[in-house]
Order: sequence, then structure tokens, then C-alpha cells
Amino acid sequence: MNTSTEQITVKKVTTSRLPEVDFDNLVFGSTFSDHMFMCDFKDGAWQDATILPYGNLSISPAAKVFHYGQAVFEGMKAFKDEDGNVFLFRPEENFERINKSSKRMAIPEFPKALFFEALHKLLALDKDWVKGGLGNSLYIRPFAMATQVGVAAAPANEYKFMILMSPVKAYYTGDVKVTIAQKYSRSANGGVGAAKAAGNYGAQFYPTNLAREKGFQQVIWTDADEHKYLEEAGTMNVFFRINDTLITAPTSDRILDGVTRKSVLAIAERDGIETDVRRLTVGELVAAAKDGSLKEIFGSGTAAVISPVSAFGYNDEIFELEKPQDSYSERFKKELMDIQYNRAQDPFGWRYPIA
Amino acid sequence: MNTSTEQITVKKVTTSRLPEVDFDNLVFGSTFSDHMFMCDFKDGAWQDATILPYGNLSISPAAKVFHYGQAVFEGMKAFKDEDGNVFLFRPEENFERINKSSKRMAIPEFPKALFFEALHKLLALDKDWVKGGLGNSLYIRPFAMATQVGVAAAPANEYKFMILMSPVKAYYTGDVKVTIAQKYSRSANGGVGAAKAAGNYGAQFYPTNLAREKGFQQVIWTDADEHKYLEEAGTMNVFFRINDTLITAPTSDRILDGVTRKSVLAIAERDGIETDVRRLTVGELVAAAKDGSLKEIFGSGTAAVISPVSAFGYNDEIFELEKPQDSYSERFKKELMDIQYNRAQDPFGWRYPIA
Repeated sequence: MNTSTEQITVKKVTTSRLPEVDFDNLVFGSTFSDHMFMCDFKDGAWQDATILPYGNLSISPAAKVFHYGQAVFEGMKAFKDEDGNVFLFRPEENFERINKSSKRMAIPEFPKALFFEALHKLLALDKDWVKGGLGNSLYIRPFAMATQVGVAAAPANEYKFMILMSPVKAYYTGDVKVTIAQKYSRSANGGVGAAKAAGNYGAQFYPTNLAREKGFQQVIWTDADEHKYLEEAGTMNVFFRINDTLITAPTSDRILDGVTRKSVLAIAERDGIETDVRRLTVGELVAAAKDGSLKEIFGSGTAAVISPVSAFGYNDEIFELEKPQDSYSERFKKELMDIQYNRAQDPFGWRYPIA
Repeated sequence: MNTSTEQITVKKVTTSRLPEVDFDNLVFGSTFSDHMFMCDFKDGAWQDATILPYGNLSISPAAKVFHYGQAVFEGMKAFKDEDGNVFLFRPEENFERINKSSKRMAIPEFPKALFFEALHKLLALDKDWVKGGLGNSLYIRPFAMATQVGVAAAPANEYKFMILMSPVKAYYTGDVKVTIAQKYSRSANGGVGAAKAAGNYGAQFYPTNLAREKGFQQVIWTDADEHKYLEEAGTMNVFFRINDTLITAPTSDRILDGVTRKSVLAIAERDGIETDVRRLTVGELVAAAKDGSLKEIFGSGTAAVISPVSAFGYNDEIFELEKPQDSYSERFKKELMDIQYNRAQDPFGWRYPIA
């Protein structure tokens, strides 16, 4: 695939919406920057790559995405340092993962050069939408969806690949209480849980609503067979600190291979913190909570970076967690954000300079 | 909910597309009738119920349906008898099921009176799109989807409920070879398999493509835990005839409660055919194929009605099935279609007259 800039047609906005945006009162993912990227797959090839003003699509109500959920997405962020330089964080990981997700959902893979070209051009156009200051970022949402018209359950032959950008503050505010899944499940062995497939998320809304009614913000999903092993939180991977060991589930066909998850593991290793990537049982977790060896639980993900868990519920019992002095979650959050915002060395080569 | 006709605004087409349609060469689900129904959920209520010309939607690329697969659908058919009367088949079942699916996907339920009012008005307007003749029908696709703008993974507060109609011939042509799932899965315990959730279908495309490459048209899904029990075929429930007993899996949170499935069971009971609703193992199936007691396998579903299976593959072995003289699949297909097309008595009260 040609990487020349000529392959993306650019249609600029006449007037930026930037002055209208109240950056102090952003609702996560609901404000979008001036431009978006769109590319169509038809006749067996990705074509008509275009950057155009953010706005509505004209799409058939019979497009397969509405009926068969043939859609995948990614979540990334652009950060601005104190000198006004813009960086992405490990974007190659997101690129590789969206194609992995696409493969599982029978969506044609997207060309790497075009993906990065689109990001560079979008961020060059909308660089003023990336606000400086710790916690501010431009959330980037690449996604692919089936646009072929037809209500027959078979893979589409037409798709759109798009990139939207949304200025955001941190995703979660305050502490998070979680409940351990005992009835509902997120994904099956041999299913699509390891993919960022659209339907994985909608399927969690109802059980998450039930959890919210009981005062929990999130669900920690367990294996669908026995509800015995702790897996992930749906929009986050989950870490457990028992004594001073950091435990997280191994990735599998049910668990998303999170970019923040693998970054936390790498930082822990560098910092000499013992990690144990293994299947932790609910029984072990409850026992550790009871004997005091459970020090922390936290989620990791692009949107939230690190979300400390203040309590978990299981079998109608609530286990409260007091944040320890030497909090791992605070430490990883700071170390990750210092790299993301160019406030620290980047020995891992995770920062990807844009402009 | 008021059932007066005033609650649906009707905008008719100026010129029907009917004369342009080649009814002898329809691709399933790709041609749509002149009108469609659309109703919006916002501010906590379904509103603005409208019948309008079939055509594109203007929708934000950040609509949640594209990102989180929060969408459900139904499949129904309208049939025309020799006197030009139009009937639906058990539409109450579809209505109840779409609301059950919606509940699981955290989508607000749709009012019954408005659902039926919409069907009546749509079919009155587009009755000439229902062609007479056995096998011809107007496939009806009600669906609901999250339209709220926002790339944050939480249930939407805005939705569209729509109904499209598509003239069709039979869904499958020729015999169907199936493979028994041994690696991939359709759904998890505690998941959304019992719902007609959009994502359930897209998730099957890739493993179905792998099956097609090996010469199979469909996959019979097994339980995700052990791949031991035969469940359903993704777009069809599955029946097994061993000797003269008709066996099908019980519905569960992994298996769709098919309208055609329950109709087949009712007809079998009426006709004095022994039925056994139980979990059949792959081992039993293979043993029955080897000792000759496996007489038939067939799928049941609205689109295909009854699809006889000509062979199944398991562990690289192919088991061919010869259609018996007293074929159950042919019998049920005929008896179902005779009721659907008003060629037989309807002791069950399944026909629902429209016009």
C-alpha cells in the first residue's frame, strides 16, 4: 500500500467548532473534533480514503452492522507535553489488535501505512483539540463496520473503516466498587471475548445495570463454566495485589490483550515488583481479603488508565479495600502517565511522536 | 399505549419501486419494499412513530450501535393465500421475543399495540409486495438499535425501533452440509445466546467461513465448556431424528427459543411423533450415524422454514444422510407451509390475518 499523502483526500471544515467546546465539562466520548477519517471497502479493496468534517453518515437501515453486529473498534489516546508536542501511546499495538479483532469478525484487515497516515493527518489538522495538562487527552476511536445492505446473516462485502477523535478528561471519577459475576458471563471459550467486537460491550450493559442497582459500578467477569476464575472487567483488565505480588489473568480467547495491561506488567518487571500471570480463583481472592493479604485491586485500560477498586462484592458480602501507603495503582498510574505526557524517560519506546 | 391510527404518521412514496423488481431473481434480504417503519426512543419514551419511504438514515458515526453492538432484531414473514389474503405466522411470538432480547441488551421494550399497528399499516401499504405462490413471502425485519451519540461503553438513552420488509424466496437452496463445532463457540452460559442480539450473528461469520472452506454451509454449535452437547445452528434450531424419535436441545440462555422450533414440536405432538427435548451428545449422534439409527437432521427457522441436512462432519469424518421415504423434514415443511399459506386448517391458531 502506497504511503504517499496523495492517497487520503482531505476536506477541511470551513469553521472550527473548537471555540464552542467547554473543555472543563467534557462528558467522556460525546464531543468530537472537527475532522474524521473514513475509508470504504468495496470490490475487494479499501478505497476512497478521506478526511472530512465530523458529521452524520447516510447509511441504509439494512446495513449489516445494525443487524449482525459485524463491527470492531479500538481505543487510543493522544497526549500533549508541556512544550506542545503530541504523542500517541503504543499505537502499533492498537493497529495490530484491530486487525486481529477484524479477522475474528470476518472483516477485512486494514493497511498499516494508511492507518498511520490517517492518524498523522487527522492529528495535524486537529492538533489544537489535544489539550495539555495531566489527565487531558484526545481519545481516538478507530472502528470498522459492515455497511453492505442486506438482512441475510453472512459476512458483508462492503465495510467502512473510520477514525473519530474526542477530547476527554479521565474516564472514571472516584473509587470503583465492583461485583464478582456469579450468573452472567462476558464471553465463551471459542467466542469473541479476545476481540474488541462491538457486541461484547452491549452484552454487558444489562448485567452491569443490575450491578449498578446494587451500588457497584463495574462487574469483574469470571469464566462462564464455573464462575470460579477472575477474568476481566469488560472495559478494563484487572490486577490483584496479594501481599506484594501483582496477579492478573493470562490472556485467552475470552480476555482482551490490553495495551495498558501489558504496560503495567512491563513497568512492574522493571521496578522489581513480583508479577504472577495466572488464573486467580474467587476463593483465593475472598480468602486473601479475609486474612488481610489482599492489598489492592485495580483495573487497567486506555480510557481509565488505572482505576483503583475500593470494594468488591461477592455472595452478598462486601469486602472493603483500604488504599495502602505504597499503592501500586497510584504508582503505575503515575509512571504510565509520566511516560504518556513526556514527563519521564521512555526506556520502552512507547511514546510515538506525532507533531 | 393508545392504539389509534393517529399515532403513526404516514409518508407515502410518490412512485412505487415495485415494477422494477425482478421477483424471479431475488437475493435473500437485499430488496426492500416501498415503506419502512421508524420510531425513536428519547427522553424516556418511544415517540415520533412514522411510516416513510424506505431509504437511508442520517446517523452519527458515534452512534452506540456501531461501537457497542447494542441492537436486537426479529425475523417474521407475511404469506399470501390463493385468494390474495395476507397472513403473518405467530407474530405475537416475535413481538414477545424482541422485547425479551431487548431486555437482555438493556434496550427499552417496545409497546405491543404500536408494534402491531405498524405491521398492519405497513402491510396495507405494501401488500402488493407479498407475492402469492408457495415459497414466496415478504420477510419482515423488526429491529432496535442504540442511536445515542457517544463512544463510552454504557447503555444508550436514545434508540430507533424500525421495521423493514423484503420480498424473498426460500432462504437455502439445495441440501445443507454441516460441521459440528469443536473449537469455536456461539455463546456462553450467562451470555446473550438466547437473545437475537446482533453480535451473536457477526461472531459466527469467521468460524462459518472456515467451515465453508471445508465444504460445509453451516456449523452446529456445541456447548462452549466441552463441545459435547449439540445446541443450535446459529440461524436455525436443529432437530435430530434417531429411529422415529425427534430430538432437539432444550432452550437455555445459550439457545434461541425458535418460533419454527416450537411449531415443529407442536406439529409432531399432534401427529403422534415421539419427541424428546433433551441434550444430545455428539457421541450419541456419531454412534447413531454409525449404527444406522440416525435417520435425519434438519434445521428450523423463519428464513429457511426447514432445512434438511445431507451430511455432517466431525473429527474429519463425514457422515452422509440419505433422505428416508417418510421424511420428517419434508413432512414438517409441508405441514408448516400449508398452515402459513392457508392451505390447511389451523388448529393451533397460528395464522394471523392482516388484510
